[in-house]
Formats: sequence, C-alpha cells, structure tokens
Amino acid sequence: MPDSPQPSPVLTHFDAHGQAHMVDVSAKPATHRVAVAEGFIRMQPATLALIAQGQAKKGDVIGIARIAAIQGAKRCAELIPLCHPLPLTRVAADFSLDEAAATLRCEVTAETVGATGVEMEALTAVQVALLTVYDMCKAADRGMVIEGVRLLEKRGGKSGIWRAGPLR
Amino acid sequence: MPDSPQPSPVLTHFDAHGQAHMVDVSAKPATHRVAVAEGFIRMQPATLALIAQGQAKKGDVIGIARIAAIQGAKRCAELIPLCHPLPLTRVAADFSLDEAAATLRCEVTAETVGATGVEMEALTAVQVALLTVYDMCKAADRGMVIEGVRLLEKRGGKSGIWRAGPLR
Amino acid sequence: MPDSPQPSPVLTHFDAHGQAHMVDVSAKPATHRVAVAEGFIRMQPATLALIAQGQAKKGDVIGIARIAAIQGAKRCAELIPLCHPLPLTRVAADFSLDEAAATLRCEVTAETVGATGVEMEALTAVQVALLTVYDMCKAADRGMVIEGVRLLEKRGGKSGIWRAGPLR
Amino acid sequence: MPDSPQPSPVLTHFDAHGQAHMVDVSAKPATHRVAVAEGFIRMQPATLALIAQGQAKKGDVIGIARIAAIQGAKRCAELIPLCHPLPLTRVAADFSLDEAAATLRCEVTAETVGATGVEMEALTAVQVALLTVYDMCKAADRGMVIEGVRLLEKRGGKSGIWRAGPLR
Amino acid sequence: MPDSPQPSPVLTHFDAHGQAHMVDVSAKPATHRVAVAEGFIRMQPATLALIAQGQAKKGDVIGIARIAAIQGAKRCAELIPLCHPLPLTRVAADFSLDEAAATLRCEVTAETVGATGVEMEALTAVQVALLTVYDMCKAADRGMVIEGVRLLEKRGGKSGIWRAGPLR
Amino acid sequence: MPDSPQPSPVLTHFDAHGQAHMVDVSAKPATHRVAVAEGFIRMQPATLALIAQGQAKKGDVIGIARIAAIQGAKRCAELIPLCHPLPLTRVAADFSLDEAAATLRCEVTAETVGATGVEMEALTAVQVALLTVYDMCKAADRGMVIEGVRLLEKRGGKSGIWRAGPLR
Repeated sequence: MPDSPQPSPVLTHFDAHGQAHMVDVSAKPATHRVAVAEGFIRMQPATLALIAQGQAKKGDVIGIARIAAIQGAKRCAELIPLCHPLPLTRVAADFSLDEAAATLRCEVTAETVGATGVEMEALTAVQVALLTVYDMCKAADRGMVIEGVRLLEKRGGKSGIWRAGPLR
Repeated sequence: MPDSPQPSPVLTHFDAHGQAHMVDVSAKPATHRVAVAEGFIRMQPATLALIAQGQAKKGDVIGIARIAAIQGAKRCAELIPLCHPLPLTRVAADFSLDEAAATLRCEVTAETVGATGVEMEALTAVQVALLTVYDMCKAADRGMVIEGVRLLEKRGGKSGIWRAGPLR
Repeated sequence: MPDSPQPSPVLTHFDAHGQAHMVDVSAKPATHRVAVAEGFIRMQPATLALIAQGQAKKGDVIGIARIAAIQGAKRCAELIPLCHPLPLTRVAADFSLDEAAATLRCEVTAETVGATGVEMEALTAVQVALLTVYDMCKAADRGMVIEGVRLLEKRGGKSGIWRAGPLR
Repeated sequence: MPDSPQPSPVLTHFDAHGQAHMVDVSAKPATHRVAVAEGFIRMQPATLALIAQGQAKKGDVIGIARIAAIQGAKRCAELIPLCHPLPLTRVAADFSLDEAAATLRCEVTAETVGATGVEMEALTAVQVALLTVYDMCKAADRGMVIEGVRLLEKRGGKSGIWRAGPLR
Repeated sequence: MPDSPQPSPVLTHFDAHGQAHMVDVSAKPATHRVAVAEGFIRMQPATLALIAQGQAKKGDVIGIARIAAIQGAKRCAELIPLCHPLPLTRVAADFSLDEAAATLRCEVTAETVGATGVEMEALTAVQVALLTVYDMCKAADRGMVIEGVRLLEKRGGKSGIWRAGPLR
Repeated sequence: MPDSPQPSPVLTHFDAHGQAHMVDVSAKPATHRVAVAEGFIRMQPATLALIAQGQAKKGDVIGIARIAAIQGAKRCAELIPLCHPLPLTRVAADFSLDEAAATLRCEVTAETVGATGVEMEALTAVQVALLTVYDMCKAADRGMVIEGVRLLEKRGGKSGIWRAGPLR
C-alpha cells in the first residue's frame, strides 16, 4: 500500500507506560478538517431490488439509513473510548446501488473546525448506516455482509491531505 | 446461499403504506435468544505486530476494543432507528490474530431473554470493536479496512436456529 | 372535562415529605399497555406546501420526523426525570396535513409489556417529531407554533381504558 | 404574520437532490447567539393549585421541570436528527402560573458561542419541561394539553435579530 | 469485617482466560431485588449552612441533587462497562445534614425485578448526587471531599440478604 | 483549610430568586484549563491482591477502570445537571495500589480549551473508575468503600491556580 509507507512505530493512544489515554490536543489550533469514508453491504439481488423499489415508492430504507448515519456521527465519541468529542460542522451521506455486484455503497463526509480529525465520525456514520440497512432487510435476508469499510480521504490539520489507495 | 432460500417479499419495518415503524412484538413471549456475529479488520503486517505485542506487554488494543464492544452492544437501540430496546443478559467478545492474512478477527456473542432477537446487538458490538481498533492504530496505518462483518448464528424465538453459510 | 372528574389530591411523584422519587412499581405485574398521543404544528400555508411537496418528490420532512419520533420514544426515561425505563414493544407515528388550517398533525402509538404506562413515551415521540419538523422548516418559517399536544388514549394496567374528551 | 413575510423557497436541510444532510457551517464564524422560546401547559384549576402549593411547601414540580429543561437542552442534538452539536454557554428557564387561564408557562433562554443558532435547544428545553410537568401531574389530571410552543426571539449570527409577532 | 469473611477467589467478570465479559444471567429468574447505598460529602461549615438555608428558602441544592441521583441511576449501565441494563422499578434518595461533622449524607434505595442485583445503580446514584452537590457549591468551597460511599444492604436473588458492618 | 479561606457567600448556580440555571459563560474567553482529581477505594487485602495479580497476568481490572474513567469524563454534562458541555482535549487516569492500606488510588487529569473549568469532568472520571472497580470486585468483596474523592488542582481561567491542602 504505497500511500502510507512508513507507519509510525508508536500507538499514540498509549503513554510511555503502555497505558491508554485520550491524547492531549490542548495546544493544537482549531482548523477546518474533512474526512470521507465508505463502506458496502452485499446482499441477495432480490433484497437489493426491494431497497431500489423503496426509493421510488415506499419503504425508504436508504432515507432511514441516511438519518441513522448522521445521528451516529454525533455519538462517535460515546462509542469509541479514546475519541475526542468534536463539534461537527457538516455530515452528508450518499448511497448508490450496484445491481451487478448486489451491493449498496454508503459514502459519508464529515467536517469540523477542531483540534483533531473527523475520521472516526465519518467511519462510525458509515457503520451505523450499514447496520441500519441490515436491520431493515434482515427479515428478508440474514446473510448480508458488510465489507470494505475504510477511510477514503482526510484533509486539514498538520498532516495535510491523505488519500486511500485502491482497495485490495 | 442455500441457508436462506426464500427471502420474505416484505420488509417488515414498513407498514402497508410503506411507512417505517418499530414492529409490534407485544404479543411475542420472552424467550432466550442468542446471536453470534463476526467481523475483520485488515491492516499492514507491522500494525498487526504492534497489536500482538500489546497483548503480551503494553498498549492493550484488544482489551480496550473488548470493552468498547460490550458498551456498544448496550447502545444498539439508540443507534439503529427501528431496533427494539432489549435487556442484554450476556455479551462476550473474542479476538484472534491471523498473521498470514494480516487481519484481526472479532466475534461477539450476545444473549437476551426477550421478545425479539439480538442480532443487531451482536453486529453493533463487532462494528464498535473494529472501529475502536481502527482508532487506536490509525496513527500508524490509515489504510486499514473493515470487512466480512456478518451474522454467524441466531438461536431462539419462533424461527429457531439459523446459521450462516461460508463467506463468499 | 367530564373524562377525569375526580383528580387525585396527591401528586404521586412525591413522598409524604414532599420529596421527589421514582414511584415503586416493583409489585405491579407486567401487562400489555398502549398509549396514543397527538400534537400539531401550525405554519404558513407556503411552508406546509413545501412539506406536502416533499412527500411526493424530494425533501422528505415527514419521513425524517417519523424516525425522530421513534428514536425519541426510546430516550423518554433519560429526558423525563421520574419516568421509569420501559422496554417498548411497538412505536408507530402517523402524520396528516390539514391545508385549510395550515397544520401538520402527528399521532403516535406506543406499546409495552411492563409495570407502568407508556403515556410519556408517546408524548415524547410527538414532541420530538414536531420539533424535528420545526428544525427542518425553520429557515423558511420561524413563526411556526406547536400546539394541542396531549394524550388521546391509554389502555392496560389497573386503571383500564382512558380516552380524552374533545380538545377545548 | 408580518415578521417573516418572505419565507425562503428552499428547505436548507435537503441538498439539490432532496437528500437530508447536516448543513455545512464550517466556514461560519463562531459568534454569540441567543434564543428565547416559550410554551404552555393547560390543566384543571385543581391541578394548577397543586403545583402552586408545591412552590411554597413541598412537591416542587416546577423545580424539577427546570432541571429537566436544562438537561434537555444539552440533549437536543441527539434528539433532532439534523441539528448541529453546540457548546451551550447558558440555559435559564422561568415559569409562571396563570390561574385565570389554568395554565403554566415556561420560557427558556439558551445561549452559545457558535457557528449556528440555538433555537432548537431553547425549544427542546421548553418541551422537556412541559412533558415533565405532565408526567408529575398525570395521576391527577390526564387531560392536560401542551400548547403555544414557539420561538420568541433569536439574536446573533448573520440574520440578526428576529422577534415573534403576537400568538394568533 | 465479619460480614463477608470468605471472599470468592474469582473475579466473575473475567472468563477462564482472564478476558472481561458481561456475565451470563440468561438462566437466572427475574426476582425482586433491592439495594441501599450511602455516601457523604464533607465541607466547610459555612458551605453546609448555605445548603441548609436553601432547603428552607431558595437555592435548593438538595432538591437538584435528588433529581440527579434518580437520573444517574438510569444511566448506570452506560457508565459501568460490564453492568447489565436493568429496568429500575423504584429509586428514592434521602439526604441529611450533620452540622457537627459538616457533612451531607445521601442514601439511595434502588429496586428492580430482574435477573441481577441493583447495587451498581444505587451506588451510581449516590455518586452522581454527591458530584452534583460538589458542582453547585464549588464556587464557595473547592476543598469538599466525597467519602464513605458504600453498599449498605442488598436483598433478593440467590444470595439473599447482605448488610454492611460498621464503617471502619 | 487554609487554601480557601473566604468562601463566596453566593451559590452561583442560583439566580437572585434562588432558581437554578446554567451559569452564563458566553463572554468568557476560551482558555486552556486543567483539573486533577483523586479518589480511593478501600477493600480487603485479598481483593487488592486479585487486582494486583490482574495487572501482571489476566483479569485486568485497572485497564477496564481506566477506559471507564475516560468514557465517564465525556458524559459529565449529561450527569451533572448544571454543568456546561465542554470539548475535552485530554483525559488521563493513573492508578496505584497501596498494599499496606489495602486501597487502590485513582488520579485523573482532564484538560480543555474552553470558557469554564474541567473540575467536574475530572471528578466524574474518578468516580466512574472507582465504581467500575467496585463492580468488578463485588462478587469477592461487597464491603469496599470509596473515599477521599476530591479536587487536587485546578489551573487556567480567571481564578488561576488552586491546589488542595492535605486531606484531613
């Protein structure tokens, strides 16, 4: 994976004694930060057809998953133990259906003006959206699989822009 | 997928007019229910080595992810819009490292004595655990991918035992 | 109001010394309980037209308010200090538009199998739904008014069926 | 209603495709913002007398509703799907009894230094306060009605000062 | 301490491999359970006088701490990682002032009908009540100390009645 | 206690009419603020030995209490009624065992860049950590006592540095 060739040797969420802490960001300036994450849920073609139908007519699975994504982003710091609370300034979730692959894709963009990044908020939103789709379709298809959940892009802060390479 | 050959044609979370609701389970008896879910996070081998090291020595990523999983299971109904609140009677999370595949696997078992299943609680716990791993290792490896999150088994209730087929 | 002619002289949420407590329901059997509540939001006709449009095409205000209602019902005991936590077994929210009166009506039915009633859950859901409508339309119309929020019906438990009289 | 004569034709919580999002406020400066909201609960005169009594002696309904209002304001962004999380810098709730009309009035002022307004926080606080009053008095009077919940005033931000006209 | 002479050699919140889990209570019957806990906050005599004054006149510190205790009990399972969620059927908080010792005492009784005990709910309520007192009086007295927080009594379940010995 | 000789005669959480409010901090600048709090849990020597063992081998009580402390700090404003929500920029929890006194000590440092202090966040974190220790060890030792919970130090803001005197 050429896009992050030199992983830091240190897990920053642990101090010198190996004890977990919420990392000190007190001295970091508040800057505009953006993160984009994506994820997929794979299902039976008949299940995907039910979702596609709902968009046009009734039973709007995607509309509900979108709300769950936005609400989930706001709860990120409650769920992820060492995550800093962040004042989100934007959350948007987009969905697309790939009928050939029988998958639904979710992409979330999260933004803040803060001292640390919003990757976790974007990823949490994707996960909650896909779990919501699972919940709403599970009576029809228990074998759905969530996959390919990852960070696509990160902007702002000292480390600048990061973009994911192709999914292996 | 031979294990669920006849998907219901109806998404039960919508009423006859296509409007979302929390499904009525008032008349269903409270029975013992179990759900097992799994998921994976794939990373660079050097990142996995950092996690493996933590188990033995310091920086216990897996110990923290386990707590996050259990706490996450309890928040499921707040995150998933149409999920019923359930009194969890057991949550356990196991982790295993596959060095050849450079992945960490998380398996969660959730149990309740209630009127509806605990699949969503088990799946939510897996997702929160894997997000927590991502959070703790992201300074070293931003390209980690969460994949293969799915229900493995479900017991109890009217529909009896369901087991997933092999992951395609 | 002929439907509740003999108000109890005691506020049950206070003990003999006037101190608030969460009332003891330990000895009450768990029975099936239902509550129905309603409420209205009055707005400019042009705002109501925007909502009506959304149902057919895009910008689904009502769909989002419905999800907020269901999610809000689950948070009732966190918001209302002396409310007992209850395992909701059903929540459904219906909306109707009255163009003549330029109001949107929300009706929520909540059910549980528990030791105490679900009135507060139904009322909380109505309030959160109407607040959500306000939030989504406030850029167009800040003068909207929420009104007529009340319990319509209550069934189950020792006190049997109660129905509201006409709104004065 | 002369105070908002030209409603915007657009519901800003939806993008150009009609999909809900949390609106981008990343570029808006943090400024001091104030919102004032009010609401009423109408009840039987005997119920209002019980509340009035509590202020002087025991069974302090209003004191508890005030705490619920302040706590509720802090949970606003969890309840209202597209609301931004905001760091509240002040919340105050005042109550007054109108014995002639047999109503209790609640007025909440909320303030923040942030990128977006605090109307929803003030309105949520009013609603939770009135629901709390309902909860505490419902054993005596199930027919209480919540009404006239609305924004009274809004200051700060680009749009300046807005004040409600008389309640129709 | 003669009341618990043979501590179990096992910490039940860990499995045979030393991994934390939420203990399985699926097979335990739901029975009526009660727990009583107490705690103290010691302060300057002048601070205690301010609190005593508030009870009679204005600035009701104890009334607010009581509400915080009840609300805190409901959040116990969110705060304590391995705690089971429990449907509380009663919470009551009593306070008493000891002017000689310049301490305020809080005693909470919590009850449930469930598969496991309510000790943690009662203890959490005491802690939140005392923290609330600290918060409200800290401008006058930063040196207050919370002490003697412990379980007094536990009834119900297989282990029967347990009562604390005298505080050493 | 020579370190706070002139307690303010006013409880700032009440207005001139004795009514509780969330104090106005709108005009206070956001500055770096630090608070350090400590607390103890006293137990039977055999229980402390079980905890000590866990650090080396398995059953890591302290590791879990540390996570609970950090998570608890983030929930402070939800638990303490008049507390302002604060964007925490650092939380760290340290533990030490005193075998002679059979006590476990917890010290938490919390930091923010905000308009008001983080004392309550640090104290809440200590309390939640000690409650978590109680929960995990209670099967072995129900008579544990939490004591000596207090603020040690406070820096930042208009009032400058405050340090506690020796614990009486």
